[in-house]
Amino acid sequence: MNRSDLFNLIRKKKSFLCVGLDSDLNKIPKHLLASEDPVFEFNKQIIDATLSYAVAYKPNLAFYESRGIKGMISLEKTMNYLEQYSNEVFTIADAKRGDIGNTSTQYAVSVFDKQASGFSFDAITVAPYMGADSVQPFLAFPGKWAIVLALTSNKGSDDFQLFTDVTETKLFERVLERTSKWGTSDNMMYVVGATKAEMLGGIRKIVPDHFLLVPGVGAQGGDLNAVAKYGLNDHCGLIVNASRSILFASDGNDFAKKAAWEAHAMQQEMELILDTNDLI
Amino acid sequence: MNRSDLFNLIRKKKSFLCVGLDSDLNKIPKHLLASEDPVFEFNKQIIDATLSYAVAYKPNLAFYESRGIKGMISLEKTMNYLEQYSNEVFTIADAKRGDIGNTSTQYAVSVFDKQASGFSFDAITVAPYMGADSVQPFLAFPGKWAIVLALTSNKGSDDFQLFTDVTETKLFERVLERTSKWGTSDNMMYVVGATKAEMLGGIRKIVPDHFLLVPGVGAQGGDLNAVAKYGLNDHCGLIVNASRSILFASDGNDFAKKAAWEAHAMQQEMELILDTNDLI
Repeated sequence: MNRSDLFNLIRKKKSFLCVGLDSDLNKIPKHLLASEDPVFEFNKQIIDATLSYAVAYKPNLAFYESRGIKGMISLEKTMNYLEQYSNEVFTIADAKRGDIGNTSTQYAVSVFDKQASGFSFDAITVAPYMGADSVQPFLAFPGKWAIVLALTSNKGSDDFQLFTDVTETKLFERVLERTSKWGTSDNMMYVVGATKAEMLGGIRKIVPDHFLLVPGVGAQGGDLNAVAKYGLNDHCGLIVNASRSILFASDGNDFAKKAAWEAHAMQQEMELILDTNDLI
Repeated sequence: MNRSDLFNLIRKKKSFLCVGLDSDLNKIPKHLLASEDPVFEFNKQIIDATLSYAVAYKPNLAFYESRGIKGMISLEKTMNYLEQYSNEVFTIADAKRGDIGNTSTQYAVSVFDKQASGFSFDAITVAPYMGADSVQPFLAFPGKWAIVLALTSNKGSDDFQLFTDVTETKLFERVLERTSKWGTSDNMMYVVGATKAEMLGGIRKIVPDHFLLVPGVGAQGGDLNAVAKYGLNDHCGLIVNASRSILFASDGNDFAKKAAWEAHAMQQEMELILDTNDLI
């Protein structure tokens, strides 16, 4: 899926919502625990309920790895289930990987090469600290994307991402400037937290064309309209993620219905934004 | 295992060698491919052959994840095999993880909490880009360690790690200064590449007491004596990793014997260094 395909998908669904599958076994509704694979059953029902409103799904790998091999089986089943919708959803392995070249290649295989690993995500989130040879291996897979951490939504993002050089360039700006030369707007995106919406204007000056993956709307308190105001471009250019506010909208038998309501409400806000900005 | 335990282990084995288990299925000796689990069989023979010379083992998780669930089973078997030696080896999950707080906690569970995940490593490598709340969850597990990336051995380390502020502080120095306040020298170490040995003197001024995990000796070209000259402290303070130079010393039937020779040669160099510096 390239940038145009993704924009077409956004126009078709009138949405730029990504549902984050941070499917914590301790938070899913108790009645699912009797299932053979409660996390997969939860994901399947969440996907069925939100598919009309979401353009992307983003399993957070930590929540699967924390259950060891059982968790990886739940993830594999989830991704196999999503495969039937491969033309209408974009899939992101939220993994924050990055290591020296030969190791990053192995991480890329682990999420992109189905024959080797069982997984064929469209994209992976990548941590830039180790530089060019840690990011470039993820760009060597045709049709796949690296989504590089730029300015994240958490409090600790201040510790290093705002570190500033003598030219008043901040580390996250340096990351945008350098990494954007390693790929194109057809195989790279950036993570920019919704809690930093006021900084999106500056970010758009450095990467006008790239898609931005924006977590932090919902449970983390980010504001969708502010994100849109500063972040939209002529291909929409935004994928906004919500996880907990959708997944755990209810912990009862009605969890999927409540998740659908939450996702639908966000899609409606997004449709208005897309319409107002002449993108649909 | 705390810092004193680790130093005692180093004195007992007269070695500060870590064997990196970057066990690439495509590089292991062909005769092992007939085994039920070739990667586990390879690791088992490597461990048996090098146990007298190594204080630590460091599986590189990318090489297991790239084979999907099969790879994770090989890793689980390897770690279960190492468990019998838990008093005489330190185990490191080389994973370069780091995410917002609730996600980092899940990553910590995935490598530290055997009951949940099947894994009980002593330590994990952590990427610092996302700041305090991405690192601190790894420090909440008693007896476990976070090994934070500071200055890595690869070429791309120049891209961001050497980014410099108006006070002439480089990003990796800022990482050392800040993160060292979040933990202690009993639960934090740093990754410093052997290819940057000349910078170890400056690093020791910031973190005099912490252990440093030093990759890059061997296949990547780093020099052990230079690392020791600038990096040793009164608890040794160094764990030097070699992966490919030991694992793939031979691709024939004699691979384990050749791996033992390589590891023994490094242990001998290390014994001389420890002796010369009155550490044994």
